[in-house]
Amino acid sequence: MSNLTIEEKEAFMLEAVNEAKKAEAIKEVPIGAIVVLDGKIIGRGHNLREQSQDATAHAEMFAIKQACATIENWRLERAQLFVTLEPCPMCSGAMILSRVNEVYYGAKDPKGGTAGTLMNLLKDERFNHVAYVESGILEQECGTLLSNFFRKLRDEKKVLKKQKKD
Amino acid sequence: MSNLTIEEKEAFMLEAVNEAKKAEAIKEVPIGAIVVLDGKIIGRGHNLREQSQDATAHAEMFAIKQACATIENWRLERAQLFVTLEPCPMCSGAMILSRVNEVYYGAKDPKGGTAGTLMNLLKDERFNHVAYVESGILEQECGTLLSNFFRKLRDEKKVLKKQKKD
Repeated sequence: MSNLTIEEKEAFMLEAVNEAKKAEAIKEVPIGAIVVLDGKIIGRGHNLREQSQDATAHAEMFAIKQACATIENWRLERAQLFVTLEPCPMCSGAMILSRVNEVYYGAKDPKGGTAGTLMNLLKDERFNHVAYVESGILEQECGTLLSNFFRKLRDEKKVLKKQKKD
Repeated sequence: MSNLTIEEKEAFMLEAVNEAKKAEAIKEVPIGAIVVLDGKIIGRGHNLREQSQDATAHAEMFAIKQACATIENWRLERAQLFVTLEPCPMCSGAMILSRVNEVYYGAKDPKGGTAGTLMNLLKDERFNHVAYVESGILEQECGTLLSNFFRKLRDEKKVLKKQKKD
């Protein structure tokens, strides 16, 4: 169960959206995440895959690592994680390992989401941690960020193709 | 399909075992991993969870990150990964994201293994990458490292308990 009000959830998700915009500003797929403990943000991150050329450079990984560093403990047992897009297996796994208590995400990921869409790793009781999961927080805003990004990318490619032809 | 001979697989797994021993030497759970490309080791890692107090500090994550850095590319498409213990969801996910071609592991993880035991994320065709998976390479050596480590830990705890009583 969540002890947060809708207003609190949306305010925290907005912080994750702000992180996603940092990724967008440097032409990375706009995904952002934060980790919250006792009402305070203790970890932030945004996708940096292309810039870092590191396959593991996902928003949630940075947010979790920074949160562990902030409290000097790998156990984030009372923490809440907010992420704009449904987590992939790697990030869901990192949430299990760090024992994040609650996970809130914005848009669903039909291609690779493992917090409810393809499966729900965070609810699989065979692992040694199960988290509370809630989706759809600022869903439209989180999703639009991504769809605009990919549309812009396609438009740019079309222009390049046309320029080559001319 | 694997193009490696049994001798090659065992020789590479021995390198992962050597990584695991580095973890053991600093009282971390002994798990080690390497990434190989064209017969050369391009990434190495061992578990550092306690020392770093970072929940994501698994052997495979270090090996994958180092491999990406070595070739300056997040795509490890022709690479092979060797790890002493069956990967968890986070590390299986990182292998999918980095598109590692082949994954070889030593001991099975009945509690959290997601490369054949609880499930096989690396073979799930809904994700955008599927890897070749082979288990049981130097299985006994990899497993004994772990069981000895945990037995020693239990023995040390018993001694401490007895000392408190006396």
